Amino acid sequence: MPALAPDVRTHVETLRVRYSDADAQGIVHHSNYFRWLEEARLGWLAAIGHPYAALTRRGLFMPVTTCSCRFLAPVRAEECVDVRLTLTAVSRARVAFKYAVRCGGRLAATAATAHAYVNAAGRPMRLTRGDPFWQTLGTAA
Amino acid sequence: MPALAPDVRTHVETLRVRYSDADAQGIVHHSNYFRWLEEARLGWLAAIGHPYAALTRRGLFMPVTTCSCRFLAPVRAEECVDVRLTLTAVSRARVAFKYAVRCGGRLAATAATAHAYVNAAGRPMRLTRGDPFWQTLGTAA
Amino acid sequence: MPALAPDVRTHVETLRVRYSDADAQGIVHHSNYFRWLEEARLGWLAAIGHPYAALTRRGLFMPVTTCSCRFLAPVRAEECVDVRLTLTAVSRARVAFKYAVRCGGRLAATAATAHAYVNAAGRPMRLTRGDPFWQTLGTAA
Amino acid sequence: MPALAPDVRTHVETLRVRYSDADAQGIVHHSNYFRWLEEARLGWLAAIGHPYAALTRRGLFMPVTTCSCRFLAPVRAEECVDVRLTLTAVSRARVAFKYAVRCGGRLAATAATAHAYVNAAGRPMRLTRGDPFWQTLGTAA
Repeated sequence: MPALAPDVRTHVETLRVRYSDADAQGIVHHSNYFRWLEEARLGWLAAIGHPYAALTRRGLFMPVTTCSCRFLAPVRAEECVDVRLTLTAVSRARVAFKYAVRCGGRLAATAATAHAYVNAAGRPMRLTRGDPFWQTLGTAA
Repeated sequence: MPALAPDVRTHVETLRVRYSDADAQGIVHHSNYFRWLEEARLGWLAAIGHPYAALTRRGLFMPVTTCSCRFLAPVRAEECVDVRLTLTAVSRARVAFKYAVRCGGRLAATAATAHAYVNAAGRPMRLTRGDPFWQTLGTAA
Repeated sequence: MPALAPDVRTHVETLRVRYSDADAQGIVHHSNYFRWLEEARLGWLAAIGHPYAALTRRGLFMPVTTCSCRFLAPVRAEECVDVRLTLTAVSRARVAFKYAVRCGGRLAATAATAHAYVNAAGRPMRLTRGDPFWQTLGTAA
Repeated sequence: MPALAPDVRTHVETLRVRYSDADAQGIVHHSNYFRWLEEARLGWLAAIGHPYAALTRRGLFMPVTTCSCRFLAPVRAEECVDVRLTLTAVSRARVAFKYAVRCGGRLAATAATAHAYVNAAGRPMRLTRGDPFWQTLGTAA
């Protein structure tokens, strides 16, 4: 893993829970946590200067290859959650993150996702050494 | 409106309500009815020989321009709903439908949607007279 | 309709579009606009001192009875939208709103919803004259 | 784990992918796989004589405590998927499953979920030895 500037490794995204995120039990449906993690990734990408819209425009996509989540405390509509993303692995072929979801001072969930780089056709690709995204992630790996 | 064969004008799509369709009140969230209407349109398109995937592959999209729904009785997870679609207007530039959503013998909702034909760039387009989709919809308009 | 203070009649809610709000065409799925309208209602309720969580805790629910939307310009992931809500009708049995959804200076959609007051069992109910929510909405109707 | 009848341990649920399950890349959003897994659990519960609606009516809920998924091949709107559920662990306090999601003959994803039994207030609970659900799952554990 390259030697990243500390602020490239982490990002905190604050989100307001939508009413439609909750399920019939009145708490957020577990599937929706993965949508928040995604928002945290988009926020991280924007913060490091590579908005996902810009990456996808030049044919670089980062689909989820594996994901997992542990649910520790329920979250309800209209609450705010902080999703803290931490980069846990990065190479020219893939990238991985872990997450802590906090709500009102308590840890609501921990999670992890891994991603491959693929092109618009969905084919795995390696970032070139000169790729601006790789330049940001660091070349000291 | 062209003289359509009766069976081109209507279609019934049966769907099972997902648990994740329900909201914090335990009944289906109103936004999800529009997703069922969409499934009814896809079922209709497939039934008349023009699956939406085939239309979009050749650059013909049918985004919703207006939609409305009246909710008459709640629907719950695991119930089955019948969505009866009826074509209400069609031209070489647009198409419109009405719907009746039934659940367990009761009328749960009525709805309507209108759609424009657009190309992959989102620009409005007119179907040519020879367009196979128009041929099916009828040229006697 | 009661004589409401001007700031009780309107509310603007700013939302960031989620990546998962978009559909296979890369633009926001039409059903998700109704989820934004709902967030605007929740924001309005909180702003006038009656958070929806507090209303539902005392058995007052406001399900959607009718809704409609006109889509004028596409919206994409990561964009921000302003949903301007305006109260258009209110009584002790129901309430209605209209909405303008703006994105980057352009009008993306206009919409309307109507709601009945119901209890936890889903039965229609009338607000009493002394109900705090009705007191806020105004008794000069 | 109790000695279950073989047909209590597995269940196959067939689902049609909704257009609104897909994301801006045209393939199913990873979060939606968890909604399919849930449908497979509901189908399994119904098949073994304990529909989830009946369980929750008597105050028995099974929220997800952990979940994970590995994505192997993309799935698109209008495709059908088979979700094969296998019970992997069961006790009077919790239950766990693994899943294989197949689409058109290929393995699209593998997944796992774990669940606690909780009451309507969200408090963990143990099934009594005489609980009908436990009777079905087996008491030979």
